[in-house]
Amino acid sequence: MIQKQAPQRREETDEETFTIEGRNAVIEAFRSGRTIDKLYILDGCHDGPVMTVKREAKKQDTLVRYVTKERLDQLSRTGKHQGVIACAAAYAYAEVEDILQAARNKNEPPFVVLLDNIEDPHNLGAVIRTANLAGAHGVIIPRNRAVGLTATVARTSAGALNYTPVARVTNLARTIADLKKEGLWFVCADMKGTMMYDLDLRGPIGLVIGSEGKGVGQLVKEKCDFTASIPMKGDIDSLNASVAAGVLAYEVVRQRM
Amino acid sequence: MIQKQAPQRREETDEETFTIEGRNAVIEAFRSGRTIDKLYILDGCHDGPVMTVKREAKKQDTLVRYVTKERLDQLSRTGKHQGVIACAAAYAYAEVEDILQAARNKNEPPFVVLLDNIEDPHNLGAVIRTANLAGAHGVIIPRNRAVGLTATVARTSAGALNYTPVARVTNLARTIADLKKEGLWFVCADMKGTMMYDLDLRGPIGLVIGSEGKGVGQLVKEKCDFTASIPMKGDIDSLNASVAAGVLAYEVVRQRM
Repeated sequence: MIQKQAPQRREETDEETFTIEGRNAVIEAFRSGRTIDKLYILDGCHDGPVMTVKREAKKQDTLVRYVTKERLDQLSRTGKHQGVIACAAAYAYAEVEDILQAARNKNEPPFVVLLDNIEDPHNLGAVIRTANLAGAHGVIIPRNRAVGLTATVARTSAGALNYTPVARVTNLARTIADLKKEGLWFVCADMKGTMMYDLDLRGPIGLVIGSEGKGVGQLVKEKCDFTASIPMKGDIDSLNASVAAGVLAYEVVRQRM
Repeated sequence: MIQKQAPQRREETDEETFTIEGRNAVIEAFRSGRTIDKLYILDGCHDGPVMTVKREAKKQDTLVRYVTKERLDQLSRTGKHQGVIACAAAYAYAEVEDILQAARNKNEPPFVVLLDNIEDPHNLGAVIRTANLAGAHGVIIPRNRAVGLTATVARTSAGALNYTPVARVTNLARTIADLKKEGLWFVCADMKGTMMYDLDLRGPIGLVIGSEGKGVGQLVKEKCDFTASIPMKGDIDSLNASVAAGVLAYEVVRQRM
């Protein structure tokens, strides 16, 4: 997917993303099968090697951002970006099918955690960690408007990324529709939902968690079969996203025991 | 309490602590009743105003660290520390009695969250947030070897610090012993404990959570009546401390409903 937009602040603060700079280095990274999370290209640059980079990006459905020279200089560590900087994922992504296969291998009904709009790498890392310990078979994240598998995510997952597959999809709502055909039910965390203790969470399930600010997007929410709420007895609005994911995931664990 | 030790790395990274620099400014801060979390004094400095600062610190049981001029220069923002820098709490601490009174006011059995060894301000903030929403009456933290109510903690608590009292005590084990006389039972999070679903968590309760690395200290653990474990179905060692606190706090909520 190719789109033109302003760079987000989050990326600048996640200083541990692995960057690959320079035309040949980026082309090589693509050809070696390395997963590229995001690609920055100098706006208006159309020469041969850059066109090759764009073709590789298109093949692999990589998000491309066209930016100014100043922005590239700011992102660059080597000072030799030649108009091209790629941000590589610290870990390889799995496919959704890998997650279903993991459930089959364990002879368990699938239990998948889906994250919508989560931009904080610490939250993503903590959720992957929780998914591992709650016995979920994998985590699904959207390709856009979300943090990828950066080094910070890997570190805060405390090793869980080595065991729990994380798949990245272009359209979360469509993935949910596909997984429903595999027999999964989807429950979406929402303050206005049914109290989680009153839902049956024992079957093949997808648990959908949104960001703290925005919650789960409307299109995704509409695809869900149920909405589950965590009892809120206090004065403030919402739990931290990774805590909410933990509380809901462990309600699934409790009901399955 | 006065002790001489190497400054901890954590403080250096929590850049948003409120610092007060200079002899008179620090003396004034003490006299105005401002809560000072930590005080840095130039090692070997014994002149009049510094002795006054030390006396005020002793009165208020403030942790004092004697450091080099280089360290003070590094901590200083104004460049005019005059050998004295104080780190003020972003919020005022409550007393343990305030927490018990909050329970009485609501006519509920006390539900208190105690944190041992938590040094990460994001974890402390998230736990205060969870405590608020799970209906706990307050949070108790130790004075030493733990993060205080810094600006980062206030921010990650998402406003919960305005509602949920946080008390700071010198000796967590002794506070537990005192609270037992008030009828509280103490349950300590530990992987080797009884499965949390098999414990009765409905009475007046103190939930004790340790750090991810060290867990709950031995002296504190020995004071607890039960140890509770969260089911671990995965490959890695432990949940994030604030997620573990959330899962356990919500098991208390579930049992109380």
